[in-house]
Amino acid sequence: MATAQGQWQDAMADAAVLVSPARLEHFVAAALRAAGTADEAAGAVARALASTSLRGVDSHGVRLLPHYLRVVEGGRVKGRAKIAVETRAPVAAVVDADDGFGHPASYRAVAEGCRLAAANGLAMVSVVNSSHFGAAGCYALEAAGQGMIAFAFGNSDSFVLPHDGVAPFHGTTPIAFAAPVRGERPYLIDMATSIVPWNRVQDYRSKGMPVPEDVAVDAAGRPTTEPADVAALLPLGGRRYGFKGAALASLAEILSAIVTGMPYCAALLPMAGPDVTTPRHLGHFFIVMRPDVLTSLDSYEAGMAAYLADLRRQPAQPGSRVMAPGDREWATLDQRNAAGIPVAPALLGEFAAIAERYRLEPIA
Amino acid sequence: MATAQGQWQDAMADAAVLVSPARLEHFVAAALRAAGTADEAAGAVARALASTSLRGVDSHGVRLLPHYLRVVEGGRVKGRAKIAVETRAPVAAVVDADDGFGHPASYRAVAEGCRLAAANGLAMVSVVNSSHFGAAGCYALEAAGQGMIAFAFGNSDSFVLPHDGVAPFHGTTPIAFAAPVRGERPYLIDMATSIVPWNRVQDYRSKGMPVPEDVAVDAAGRPTTEPADVAALLPLGGRRYGFKGAALASLAEILSAIVTGMPYCAALLPMAGPDVTTPRHLGHFFIVMRPDVLTSLDSYEAGMAAYLADLRRQPAQPGSRVMAPGDREWATLDQRNAAGIPVAPALLGEFAAIAERYRLEPIA
Repeated sequence: MATAQGQWQDAMADAAVLVSPARLEHFVAAALRAAGTADEAAGAVARALASTSLRGVDSHGVRLLPHYLRVVEGGRVKGRAKIAVETRAPVAAVVDADDGFGHPASYRAVAEGCRLAAANGLAMVSVVNSSHFGAAGCYALEAAGQGMIAFAFGNSDSFVLPHDGVAPFHGTTPIAFAAPVRGERPYLIDMATSIVPWNRVQDYRSKGMPVPEDVAVDAAGRPTTEPADVAALLPLGGRRYGFKGAALASLAEILSAIVTGMPYCAALLPMAGPDVTTPRHLGHFFIVMRPDVLTSLDSYEAGMAAYLADLRRQPAQPGSRVMAPGDREWATLDQRNAAGIPVAPALLGEFAAIAERYRLEPIA
Repeated sequence: MATAQGQWQDAMADAAVLVSPARLEHFVAAALRAAGTADEAAGAVARALASTSLRGVDSHGVRLLPHYLRVVEGGRVKGRAKIAVETRAPVAAVVDADDGFGHPASYRAVAEGCRLAAANGLAMVSVVNSSHFGAAGCYALEAAGQGMIAFAFGNSDSFVLPHDGVAPFHGTTPIAFAAPVRGERPYLIDMATSIVPWNRVQDYRSKGMPVPEDVAVDAAGRPTTEPADVAALLPLGGRRYGFKGAALASLAEILSAIVTGMPYCAALLPMAGPDVTTPRHLGHFFIVMRPDVLTSLDSYEAGMAAYLADLRRQPAQPGSRVMAPGDREWATLDQRNAAGIPVAPALLGEFAAIAERYRLEPIA
């Protein structure tokens, strides 16, 4: 499905060291604990990051560890937050992350959503007073693993132009959707509503490569392909059709921030700092639904199987094949489970410094 | 927001005759009744088409009348369908359209969704055994008019390439989302998951204009800008990033067809015929949620107001302004309520023939 991302991974893997997923997850959890994070929260963050790296989404995987250590040490994120769940209706709950990590609060929200949906067919759950939650897909997948269909939405600070705008407003606000597939791993969509993620630009820069056309703009809002000049990203659809991507970013923003009662994109402190002491109060939003309420489970499962088989057998461009959403991620997972997760030299250096600082066993 | 669509409307309006919205709605309903459609269903279709034309979405407005007359006369769509509602859970209902028009069944589904969500905070409703429902936005808007946030999804037959594919598979499957805004008309997203709608290509052809780059392909799946050669559309994101648009189409397809137990895109009879006697069994899917469950109504309303005001005051490209989703549609509605809805000469000719055939008062 994601050719551009596939090429990206290949390029990144060239100089990388392969590390076992279990080793990485263990290291992430140990480092977070050493920085003052409670066991359960550290485990949830480590699980989210390692599983995301396994699926090949390196932008939201273990590379986030140094950032998370900075913010938990700085006090922006509470390592020992007390997560609280309040049920607001038979099918609605609010999870208060207490300014802790977004990952344990989001896993908790999905667990609550699955419980309420199991009883009632459908549920919505918000997470408030949260921080970065990694890849939205983690939480949609968690629900799909329990036989549920789920949406996950999050927001972030300003990186992306509004349509017809010249300055960043929305974040790269993710939309994730997952659904169970009988006898297979779940169907999975996990996408930013910008054309490319922000850190992709940094990588073009570090490789001395131009950014593709119609993907990014400079500080004056003019199109640029020079990575050093990039000041903001274009929404999905680019200059001409970006009203669609901007609308999707806006939708995710409304669900994550307005419906949850949290600050919206432009009112958020930047993820990157320099302030790493003040909580950011991110919001997340989840919808969980049982697939066997509006039709039978047999009908749902047979329908998914037929649809996915038909999609995957569609004729393809030379040298490629048509994949269903998630296929690329699961292929990467199989490969990385077997061979290890590639960790780039720069990140390996950061991990070595982390190991030394917290007296942990080095990762490689 | 939608510059490309705005230009489009300006171009179309050049040679058009302006007709009052009430006159158009009355004519559509009268023609449908004359073709054997029950009063309530004819009224629902007319309301959907006229309101869609008013918002400037001409592709899904009154231009659909000749097609709807063909299918109701052909027997594909029952003019006197018996809509049945079955509640499957406290927050879930199935509306059986009985092979009638999609519009009355979808309005009914939204009414049921609003009723269930008012009581429980959230609801999902499917429509099964349906036909074309016009613009998905009609139904999200209907819920927003009742103070609810809503998603609407539909599917359609194959027009759009899968990512990396060479032949059409998904439809232009719409995603709509609407939310109430205190003191304003609702926030509205109503978008196809292809870059442009299918009939936009027909219009480029009739105007002798090339199709923009990276929007459409020929019968061999190769990029083309020649309207006469266009055989399929590219998903939002184009050749390089179309995996995102294809994923959104796939998501809408799963909710509209698989979750509802209806046939998926490639298994549907084509909307355009030639068979206009066999029912198509389209599915639609709606989620309705109260905005005052996870946060207070005051918090929601204040949050929306602040977010939208901030978005609308963002600095813009020279000669344009940053709009929120729906702003363009509501501006068009004000203008068309005052001046009338532009009806192109070709459509006016079709309306004249319809008037003669059914002995109706001509529209202009």
